Parts: sequence; C-alpha cells; structure tokens
Amino acid sequence: MLGVEAILLLVPTVVSLIYKEKSGLTFAFPIMILIFCYLAFGQIKPKDTSLYGKDGMVIVALAWILWTLFGCLPFVISGFIPNIFDAIFETVSGFTTTGSTILTNVEVLPHGLQFWRCFTHWIGGMGVLVFVLVITSLEKKSSMVLMRAEVPGPEKDKLVSRSMTTARILYTMYFILTAIEVGFLMFGGMNLFDALVHSFSTAGTGGFSDYNASIAAFNSTYIEGVITVFMALFGINFTMFYLLLLKEWKDVWKNEELRGYIIIIGLAIAFITLYEVHAGDYSNYGTSFRYAAFAVVSTITTTGFVTTNYNLWHEASKVVILLVMIIGACASSTGGGIKVSRFIVAFKQLKNTVKAIIHPKGVNIIKMNGRKVGEDILRGIQGYFICYIFIFLISVLCISFENLGLEGTVSAVLTCLSNVGPGLGKVVGPVGNFSSLSDFSKMILSFDMLAGRLELFPMLVLLTLPFQRKKF
Amino acid sequence: MLGVEAILLLVPTVVSLIYKEKSGLTFAFPIMILIFCYLAFGQIKPKDTSLYGKDGMVIVALAWILWTLFGCLPFVISGFIPNIFDAIFETVSGFTTTGSTILTNVEVLPHGLQFWRCFTHWIGGMGVLVFVLVITSLEKKSSMVLMRAEVPGPEKDKLVSRSMTTARILYTMYFILTAIEVGFLMFGGMNLFDALVHSFSTAGTGGFSDYNASIAAFNSTYIEGVITVFMALFGINFTMFYLLLLKEWKDVWKNEELRGYIIIIGLAIAFITLYEVHAGDYSNYGTSFRYAAFAVVSTITTTGFVTTNYNLWHEASKVVILLVMIIGACASSTGGGIKVSRFIVAFKQLKNTVKAIIHPKGVNIIKMNGRKVGEDILRGIQGYFICYIFIFLISVLCISFENLGLEGTVSAVLTCLSNVGPGLGKVVGPVGNFSSLSDFSKMILSFDMLAGRLELFPMLVLLTLPFQRKKF
Repeated sequence: MLGVEAILLLVPTVVSLIYKEKSGLTFAFPIMILIFCYLAFGQIKPKDTSLYGKDGMVIVALAWILWTLFGCLPFVISGFIPNIFDAIFETVSGFTTTGSTILTNVEVLPHGLQFWRCFTHWIGGMGVLVFVLVITSLEKKSSMVLMRAEVPGPEKDKLVSRSMTTARILYTMYFILTAIEVGFLMFGGMNLFDALVHSFSTAGTGGFSDYNASIAAFNSTYIEGVITVFMALFGINFTMFYLLLLKEWKDVWKNEELRGYIIIIGLAIAFITLYEVHAGDYSNYGTSFRYAAFAVVSTITTTGFVTTNYNLWHEASKVVILLVMIIGACASSTGGGIKVSRFIVAFKQLKNTVKAIIHPKGVNIIKMNGRKVGEDILRGIQGYFICYIFIFLISVLCISFENLGLEGTVSAVLTCLSNVGPGLGKVVGPVGNFSSLSDFSKMILSFDMLAGRLELFPMLVLLTLPFQRKKF
Repeated sequence: MLGVEAILLLVPTVVSLIYKEKSGLTFAFPIMILIFCYLAFGQIKPKDTSLYGKDGMVIVALAWILWTLFGCLPFVISGFIPNIFDAIFETVSGFTTTGSTILTNVEVLPHGLQFWRCFTHWIGGMGVLVFVLVITSLEKKSSMVLMRAEVPGPEKDKLVSRSMTTARILYTMYFILTAIEVGFLMFGGMNLFDALVHSFSTAGTGGFSDYNASIAAFNSTYIEGVITVFMALFGINFTMFYLLLLKEWKDVWKNEELRGYIIIIGLAIAFITLYEVHAGDYSNYGTSFRYAAFAVVSTITTTGFVTTNYNLWHEASKVVILLVMIIGACASSTGGGIKVSRFIVAFKQLKNTVKAIIHPKGVNIIKMNGRKVGEDILRGIQGYFICYIFIFLISVLCISFENLGLEGTVSAVLTCLSNVGPGLGKVVGPVGNFSSLSDFSKMILSFDMLAGRLELFPMLVLLTLPFQRKKF
C-alpha cells in the first residue's frame, strides 16, 4: 500500500520536472521513506490472510491515516503549508475528496504541488482500497470484507460478488470518464494542466481548484456546463455505467436510487431558480438557473466547486443547499453524504411504520428495485443514521468554540461529514476557507471527513481500539 | 371530552368574576358551544368500544385539535388576539406545554385570560388523555391503546398495566406537587395569582408567565431556585415518585434514565458555568451558575421560563442549550423532547453495533434497568429518530422563508418540536416572540408542537387519513 503511494507520488514529481520547479525535490523525501517502509515491512507476508470485518475496518482506517501522514509531507517540506495540522487537514480533505482548504491563496503553489493536491482527489475518489485490491491481490474472501468497509453506501450487491474483476472494470470506467472530461474541457479552451487538475477534482467529486475563485475564474458557461454534467455523472452509482455497457437499459431505468437522485436534483434546481428570482437575488431566470444548477449539482455530488457566492442567497435557498449536502450522491459513486438510497430506504421504513399502525395485521416488506431489503441492511441503515446524529452533534459542540455562528458551525461539520468542501457563513462559506480555525477544530473536522468518507463505522471502531483489552 | 373542556373553562370564568372583569363573558360562548356539542354528540355511545392503535392515535390527535379550536375562542372573542392563526398558535402552545408566544405584551391581558393561558399548560401537562381516561371510563383494553399514544416516551412498562388506577395516582401526585410549589412560591413573597399561574406553567413544563420578562421579573434567587427544583422534578418520570411512595428506593436509584437525566443536567450546567466565565460573559462563578442552572433546567425539562437572555451567550453555550433542547426530559413526565431514555437506548444500540463489528460472534443484547429491551421497542425508537429527522428537515425548509438566519430557523423548529418555548436568535430568542412570523409558519410550528407532544406518529397518521381509500 505504501509502495503504491510512492509510485503515485512520482507523478507530481514528473510534473514538477516538466515545469522545472525546485519544489519537485520535496516529493523525493516522502518517496524515499515510503520505499524504505515498503521494503522493510511490505515483504512480511501475514500468516493468516483471512480478515474479519473488524480487521478490514481497522486496516482501511489506518491506511487512510497513513496515506494522509505521508501525503502531507510535500506541503510541509516545501514550506507552503508550514503548520503540520494545516497540512494534515489539506491532505485529508484531498484524499477524502472533500475539497475544504486552509489555503488563503491557492495560486502561489507551484505546479507540482497543485497537481499533487488535486491528484489526491482522484486517488481518493475510487477509494484507496480499489487500488489496493488491484495491486496487492489479496485472496478473494478477505478482499470482499475490505470492500465492505470501503465502497460507499448500502447498495453493493452487484459489486461485491466479483471484487477483483469489478475493481478493474470500475477503474477503467473511472479512467475513461476522466479522460473524456479532460477532452471536453480542453475543447472549451482550458490548457492541459487546468483541464487535468479540474478533471481529477470532478472525478473524485473533490473540489480543489488551482484558482482561488474556483470554477468562477473561467467565467464560461460552456466550462460550467461540462463540469456540471460530469459532476452529476460521477455522483451516479458506477454499477449503472457497467449496466449500460452491458446494455441492461431496463435495470438502469428502473433503478430507484438513480430516479430519486435525478428527482432531488431537479426539484432543488427548480426551487432555487424560481425562489432566487422571486426573492430578487437574480433579475432573470437564465442567470438564476445557471448558478442554481451548478451549486446544487456541485453540492449533492459533494464536489464543492464554486461559481457564485451562494452564501449571499436568501435563507430558504441556503437550506436547500444544506439539505442536498446532507443527502449526498448515490451509493457506489465517488460522492459522499448519507446517500440517496439510504434516504429512500429510511423514507420507506417510515411509510411502513405508519402503515403498520393503520393496518396492524398487514404484511409490510420494504422493497428496493423490486427486491426485498434484508433485515440486516435495514438495521445497518438505522444504525448509520443514529451514528450520524451522534457524530454530528458532538462535532457541532466542538466546533462551536470557534464562534462561527450556528450557520457556520453546522455547515462546517456537514460539509466535512459529507465531503463537500465549502460550507455557509462568512468564514467557511464558498468564498472563505478553513485557515482561521484552531488546530483542535481542524483535527475534529479531519476526523469528520474521514468518518464521512469511510461510512462512519471504521473510524468509530478505530477509536475503540485503545479501550479493548483483548488481543485482536 | 368536550364536556370536560366546558367544565375546565368555568375555572377562568370564576377567576374573571373574582377580579370583576368583563372579559369573563368571553368564556361563556365557548362553554355554551361545548355543552351543546356534548349534549348533541356525547351521549351517542359507540357500538364497538374496542379501539385499535390507529383509531387511538386519530382520536388523540383530533381531541387535541378540537380542544385547541375551542380553547382559542376566548382569546379571539375578547379581542386580545384578533388573528385566528395567532390564537391557534397560542392555544396549541398552551395545551402542548410549549410556551412559545405570539404576544408582544403579555401584561395587558386581563386576569381571566392570563389564568386560562397558563391553565392550558396545566391541563396539557398530564395529557388530555389522562383526564379523558379518568372521566369517560372507557373499557380497560382500549384505554391502554389510548395511553400508548399519549404517555410520552418509550418507557411505560409500569404504567400501562394499571391504566385506570395509575391515571388517578398520577393525577393526585401532579395535583399535590403543584400545590406544594404554590406554597413555596407564596412563601417567597409571590401573590396567590402569580404563584398559581407559575405553578401551572412549571407543572406542565410549559413556560407561559404573566410577565413579559418571565421569571426575571421577580429578580429573586429564592424564586428562581424553587422553580428550578420544581422544573427538574416535573421533568422526572412520574413512576419514580410512585416508586418513592412505595419506598422502592433501589429501583429509583438504579433507574438509568434518571441517572442519565441528572448527569446530563450536571454536565450542561458545569460546562456553561465554567465556559461563560471563561468567555467573559459573566465576571464570577456565582452569577454564571445562577443563570446557567436555570436556563439548562428550564430547557431540558422543556419548560422555557427565562431569567436571562442566553442569546447573548457565546456560541458553545448556546449549542449546549440546543442539545439539551433536543434531548428533553424523562419519559412519562410532563416534559417534551426526544426523551433521555430514547437517547440512552440509541447510544447503547450504537455501542452494540460497533461491538458486533469487533466480535461478530458475540451475543449483544440491549438492557435497560436490568431488563432486556424488546425488538419492537428498538424498532420503535429507530423509527422515531428517522421520523424526527424528516419532520425536522421539512419544517426547517418551511420556516426558512422567514429569513430568521439558520440559528433562528433551526431553534424555532426545535423549540416547537421539543415543546420548550423560546428559541435562539433575535426574533424567536428568549426576549423575542413569534408574532412577526407569517400565518403559514405559525401553522407549521403549531403542527410541530402537536407532533412533538404526541410523539410524532399520531399526527403523521392523521395526515395520511385523506389518502386512505379504505374505510377505517
């Protein structure tokens, strides 16, 4: 795993060399450490390769933390982010595809670091584990358990059964989609570097940009349109693309999560477009639609690109942005959040409970895509919601010491838990950044980003490790 | 049921007569209508007296709405609250023991209306249904179902089995506790009327006062102390008092909800006391403790009395206030909120889920007070949380049109869902009121108050009635 990161770190080094930047040297040091670690420990084959759920979760959580610790070294060594907590925050934000930044001026970074910053999104996007799966070739059974911790969302039926092959297919689709986006962006007048960097951020639904103004820097409806479409695509369950390749149109059409996703996006855009004109923030529907569509898609896919300062919108629109931030993208996409499918199942459960009160003798089964949802999945989803509430409330309490105002506090926590990027309010809003926060808050938010990315439980299990007496 | 309200309306009429107020006449009209309705419909005995869960819920929900509609008439007729939506809001706020008000100047009300306003708290406090139980003498089985909809919280084991007797015992304890509080308050220099009115509000954990400044008007640490203690008492599960009467000290001592309740109150008071001095809002710990203790107890018991404008506190303290607002009091008390026991069970479930990941083969049972918590109760609690999230999010969206700021919006919804009273922010905060809100918002918040009071589901079932094709 660490060997893989060394190889990945070579990429920005090459970029630095192309641009003849001295900062390329900053990558050399972490690469050397990583290779050393790999040679020292990587060859030790574990005796027992069968992994259980807990071990899988601990490994995943530790892997993300280790990658972060090494991944942040270039920022620290180069001196562009001297504070280690800042560097950790920025790198966690990168790998978890959040896109929150502590940099007040992104544009001073050399190309090598710019590239690395957005490249972390791309790496994080598919989950470090898909890479690990492909390269370290663990035995099939244990890799499935690892997949369980990694692949976002409750719905992984199609994916889990074929782990190795599937990983390769997903990886290929991810690569091709990114390449297509690069092509479209260059067609719109972007240079190769910008196109690559923004495609990486879109693919991972991350949100880092090499411009302070994010996508607004280009001020081009074409580029905004392309990015909007690709953000929406990367927020869709990747199984859907696979099914499209297999020409299973019917399954795609009947997928309830995809429908829900499209309906929510449509409603949110329509609401904000109409309300913002009504409230007087925009004078015509065209402008309103342009900004509303971008902001909604950017938020629900948890990308976090910005074309307008939606913090200046009226409150109802901002609440809609917060709502789609909580909902998030589809399961098994690169997007974060609670996931549309979880909300659909939760809503169906609610309907069933009310139904059970009205017709106590009726049989109430929850179906999703025509198939029955198992009891264990239902319990998992309920557990997820309760876990989410606890992490959310505790984080809000921790962040409230910053006195950001409730809007700032709540949105900062939500944006990190959902891996979106920008929050609301003056400080952490679309035109702000997280630099003014205390190191304590940055660590809490880093935890939230990791917890959100790893579907909450791996991080909780990791937290309980010190309290476990038994050997594990 | 309507007959009971007619009798109850006689009480403020008498008060009006004592004070020789003309407004006493305003009670005459609703009393006449109620008596007429009672005579017209009350004598029709239903053929089938066995009631199922749904019917119980519908009856309860309808009863509260009918009581509200008749109960608000004195306000409208007297002309002190001319707008019908305002009057409904005020009366719902009364019966649900919320204590949110739309009156900008409470003190102009005549004594009769003042009395009626706080009396609604007292009536609402034990739940209209306990009265109905006592007076209409439904058969035992069906009354248990009615109790299910009415008695707040998931824990009603001890209570349900003895409905009728229990109802009488609860009623007596409620009466005695209120009487003791009146005594203590009068001992502190309050006149009989003020003492009665504030005891009603405390007993119902409501929060209406006949002074604009609420309890701050007295500026007496003795009165604040007495009210703090009684608020805390009325937030405790009434079964505990019953057990104390039976001298079952051990059961009371071992009650996990009571412990949790005391620990949460203690932690919250300690936190705010220390933090507010540290943040510089208060110069010494004595003052800080005085206001912190009152505010925390007033909020967690969902009473909503005010001694200080805690909206001016630093944010972390305000977040603590919001947290205890969400948590609420104990089950089977007159307090609202999600209830401490639900949080304890949810937290245990979370712990169990993490445990299950670590030891997949271990048996994980959730125990509460030494007894196993059944699957159906667990499912009920999870359903409650999910239902809460949905109602909360939709209400926030509806209220956000008011542009109160996220703090104002979120706290307005929470304060109504938890039946507390005041929210945060400039408009709905401790020194503000709900008068400036639109009629639409007032109706949404009235719905929230009723939903919160009736444990969410009865109102949802009522909402689905128009969509049911089958006869029920």
